[in-house]
Amino acid sequence: MTSGTRTPAPREPQQERSRLTRERLLRSAIEALAQDGWASATVAAVAERAGVSRGAAQHHFPTREALITAVLEQVFDDMTSTASAAIATMPDDDAGRIAAAVDRAVAIYTGTEFKAALQVWAAAASDSALRELILPMEGKFAHAAHQMTVTALDPEGRYPDSRRIAQVTLDLARGLGLADTLSDDSRRRAQVVATWTELIRIALTHTA
Amino acid sequence: MTSGTRTPAPREPQQERSRLTRERLLRSAIEALAQDGWASATVAAVAERAGVSRGAAQHHFPTREALITAVLEQVFDDMTSTASAAIATMPDDDAGRIAAAVDRAVAIYTGTEFKAALQVWAAAASDSALRELILPMEGKFAHAAHQMTVTALDPEGRYPDSRRIAQVTLDLARGLGLADTLSDDSRRRAQVVATWTELIRIALTHTA
Repeated sequence: MTSGTRTPAPREPQQERSRLTRERLLRSAIEALAQDGWASATVAAVAERAGVSRGAAQHHFPTREALITAVLEQVFDDMTSTASAAIATMPDDDAGRIAAAVDRAVAIYTGTEFKAALQVWAAAASDSALRELILPMEGKFAHAAHQMTVTALDPEGRYPDSRRIAQVTLDLARGLGLADTLSDDSRRRAQVVATWTELIRIALTHTA
Repeated sequence: MTSGTRTPAPREPQQERSRLTRERLLRSAIEALAQDGWASATVAAVAERAGVSRGAAQHHFPTREALITAVLEQVFDDMTSTASAAIATMPDDDAGRIAAAVDRAVAIYTGTEFKAALQVWAAAASDSALRELILPMEGKFAHAAHQMTVTALDPEGRYPDSRRIAQVTLDLARGLGLADTLSDDSRRRAQVVATWTELIRIALTHTA
């Protein structure tokens, strides 16, 4: 942030159009992955889905690898914002804050973005180049998600176990996300989340 | 079991050969899914991988749907045996038993079978016929896994919360399994498992 308080110059219409096209392509690719699976997320198919010419799509994403890389960046950004959006509005009391922190973690893994990421994941299990592409991005995301969950659970750093509990929370949330991919699991999930929230409260009180 | 104590008649060699061929095909299909993904698990490709003629493979599995159904039955059976095998040898003390129960639940979701199931899962996200096929089998498996985990955690039914804690354990184990699909996550997982085992101990003691 070196620009201080200056108002940014308005974008050129051409530049703005290009940005919107890129955004539309990424949105379509995420939807395609989540709804129709890995095979549907080629540059040509995504261009058609987005109503963008194949030439324009190839200008933004010359290869499928470029498209998938950008999709994952977007997915991890979206998943991170899901988790961070609510931190500003966290309840003040311990019980309310723990419940909100768990809800946030679960929200990361139960949206369209996670369903899209899961398809890339499954494809990467048999594609070592794709795996090498994903792992550092996933590592960065995991770190950010953990930091946010620790902050949400324990903003004042009062509980020595909050880092380990945040880790369990995120692994549990990932498992709940996977259980939600084939059918709506929200009722069962609400009970699991309630149990886990209560266990965190007991554990933090017990070990503080 | 209406046969009482009679020794079963020895199988016809032909029948035995057929059984072994079916088993080899299923084993190859599970490996193909886990290592090479959904696209690799066709009847023809699996026949080749298993060293079985295409005709013999089609005799056992006339369609891909028949093959995938049998694979899932085998996978869920294998995952259930993983969990039940150790129940007979559970430690007597609470702490040892809880640790063993969590280890069993995690073992369900970190083997080749889960990696194969994950590929079917991902494919089913965009295939409603496959989804309809999976959901009842998955429901049956989830029920069995829950029963076994409750029994392992709390064989004497002393803890009112053991059913809910078993549920959280299985969702967490599923999330840990997913984290293990792209790289060996065993070191990080050991810490998460240790934390969770300790939290269960605290929770059961607290609420008993």
